[in-house]
Amino acid sequence: MTYCSSCGATVSRKVPAGDDHERWVCNSCETIHYQNPLVVVGCIVEQDGKLLFCKRAIEPRYGYWTVPAGFMELGETLAQGAARETREEACAEVELHEVFACVDVIDAGQVHFFFKASLKGGHAAGAESLDSMLVPTEDIPWDDIAFLSVRFALEKYLEDAGDYNGVHFHEVRRSKLVEGN
Amino acid sequence: MTYCSSCGATVSRKVPAGDDHERWVCNSCETIHYQNPLVVVGCIVEQDGKLLFCKRAIEPRYGYWTVPAGFMELGETLAQGAARETREEACAEVELHEVFACVDVIDAGQVHFFFKASLKGGHAAGAESLDSMLVPTEDIPWDDIAFLSVRFALEKYLEDAGDYNGVHFHEVRRSKLVEGN
Repeated sequence: MTYCSSCGATVSRKVPAGDDHERWVCNSCETIHYQNPLVVVGCIVEQDGKLLFCKRAIEPRYGYWTVPAGFMELGETLAQGAARETREEACAEVELHEVFACVDVIDAGQVHFFFKASLKGGHAAGAESLDSMLVPTEDIPWDDIAFLSVRFALEKYLEDAGDYNGVHFHEVRRSKLVEGN
Repeated sequence: MTYCSSCGATVSRKVPAGDDHERWVCNSCETIHYQNPLVVVGCIVEQDGKLLFCKRAIEPRYGYWTVPAGFMELGETLAQGAARETREEACAEVELHEVFACVDVIDAGQVHFFFKASLKGGHAAGAESLDSMLVPTEDIPWDDIAFLSVRFALEKYLEDAGDYNGVHFHEVRRSKLVEGN
């Protein structure tokens, strides 16, 4: 951030009066530009014992497999966001059940929430996907899962084995394994 | 938003290529300025059957009672955010338990998460509070609760009566009751 989105003047890092965090503050109109974590919502979608995966057609993690998930938008609920992402990435309609996994991805400034869901009808690769597939749990492509949060959600989904055991929490520094990390 | 925070040029509302939402886009460098919901984290804090409340010393809802809660910051987890807010608003250290309530506050662009927590030691009014108090559940100041999400969390907390029944979801348009709404 270099310029104030309100008045166009330059901004500086400062601790505003009464605050204890450094923020971007406008050098002219003194608007404080807060930056906060983003919410990612997704779901593990099941049909007849098989789970739904999408192969990413965009970076990060182009070509890796994931479950439908993405940034929550203004004007929608967590559940609406998860359903919309599933529609966009896997051309699939779902019935949503519980939120069962939550992963804080600290260095990315994100919190990921995963719902359990049932597939209603078919699926296909959406605009951001190269492919979509429904696979039995023994064929989950563990070595090619795009994100650590998705791996965690899948592990807990299998451990739950159809039961609801509340929300499983997890904390990672980054969204994916990075060499040397 | 009027100016691009990257280059200082003006911005316009446009649907970027490959997107289906209108965004603020820079007229010069074409940076897309996404805006997404914010996460609020808080907790219902119990000690010997009494619950912890803070009287707000800031707007919105100056003078109304609430439970410790506030915006999640970059670099922390949901749980760390809830503990930090409790420290700031009620000068209190807590042991956090489950997330048990989640409220989508659609028109505010917020998602509120509430943990159950146990008070460790004392409490006092923090910088953003006029007062703090521990009250028996029959003395909860229902008519002077600052936010609808807090009211929902309190109701579900009492209904749970010490059990964990997963996360209770709720959806409101605004954070507080507005006349004529």
